[in-house]
Amino acid sequence: MSDILKKHITKFVNLTEQEFTDVLSYFKIIDSPKKKNLLTEGKICKSNYFVIKGCLRMFFINDKGVEQTIQFALENWWLADYTSFSAQKPSGFYIQTVEKSEIASIDFAAQEKMLEQFPKMEKYFRTVHQRAHAAYQFRIKYLYGSSREELYHEFNKLFPEFVQRVPQYLLASYLGFTPEYLSEIRKKRIS
Amino acid sequence: MSDILKKHITKFVNLTEQEFTDVLSYFKIIDSPKKKNLLTEGKICKSNYFVIKGCLRMFFINDKGVEQTIQFALENWWLADYTSFSAQKPSGFYIQTVEKSEIASIDFAAQEKMLEQFPKMEKYFRTVHQRAHAAYQFRIKYLYGSSREELYHEFNKLFPEFVQRVPQYLLASYLGFTPEYLSEIRKKRIS
Repeated sequence: MSDILKKHITKFVNLTEQEFTDVLSYFKIIDSPKKKNLLTEGKICKSNYFVIKGCLRMFFINDKGVEQTIQFALENWWLADYTSFSAQKPSGFYIQTVEKSEIASIDFAAQEKMLEQFPKMEKYFRTVHQRAHAAYQFRIKYLYGSSREELYHEFNKLFPEFVQRVPQYLLASYLGFTPEYLSEIRKKRIS
Repeated sequence: MSDILKKHITKFVNLTEQEFTDVLSYFKIIDSPKKKNLLTEGKICKSNYFVIKGCLRMFFINDKGVEQTIQFALENWWLADYTSFSAQKPSGFYIQTVEKSEIASIDFAAQEKMLEQFPKMEKYFRTVHQRAHAAYQFRIKYLYGSSREELYHEFNKLFPEFVQRVPQYLLASYLGFTPEYLSEIRKKRIS
């Protein structure tokens, strides 16, 4: 299943078969059941996660004790708390599997070493983070520029498969709604 | 003034004097007055901007015709619409100087060429985007997890100089407030 990671890397960087084998040796492949925490608040985010199959989410627990999802990662997405990961200091977030998932995981020290051995992988991660940066700029635009109802419809238009796949209460949390409000919007649309 | 850019690059990557001179040759240094648009909605974001001195902001115009600021860049920060920049397609944003500014600007093609000639600059930009990615994760956490009043106080605690320096109506826009609401919070604090 590491073919998916290979395909993603080679979209941005050319690697020989041998180089890919060597790069892959820095990773662990994890099979994880649904709803398993890969990261817990207060712990160091030791690994950077690439989703081969399945879905992850990152969340924090707010003042009211409610889980607030801030990011999802489906296939071909990377996820980590990059503040905690890059400084190797305690995290304010949780990372959890939403579905049974297969994940390529690379530890901080292994990633540093891999980047030293294969500097062209810097280009790969530069591209990954630049795209995430771009996506967040748009996300803030939508959060500030749209009503909550428009936000849902826009999101549905951009990521229809995603909206079908993710549990509705998690999608509501991600969009900053209550599940009841999301259910109302959806009903309105059908009627 | 390119010393500031050099200092920023060498925080993350080692460059010889000659390499830095060659890297710098891909940049243009721009002196820009206050309130000048470097990017206009509908145009391609041709350049990536590094602030040597001054302040930039990125904004869009919402349905009500109001400018909504989504990002600031002070000294040592990079700013571009990275969706438009990396695909060289029209932007949905404006980029404008908040103060009289000195900016190191690099065009898309020049940046690609520079990265090809100096692959170690990939590490520099990887780090820049990874840090921005991390900052956006926290920003979403604050936006979702705090009341608007807490948001302002948190921001004030984290970036006191910034809060003093940026015009209050722009800060209000950035935090998603009306200027009147920000003024109320500030009064409450003093009294």
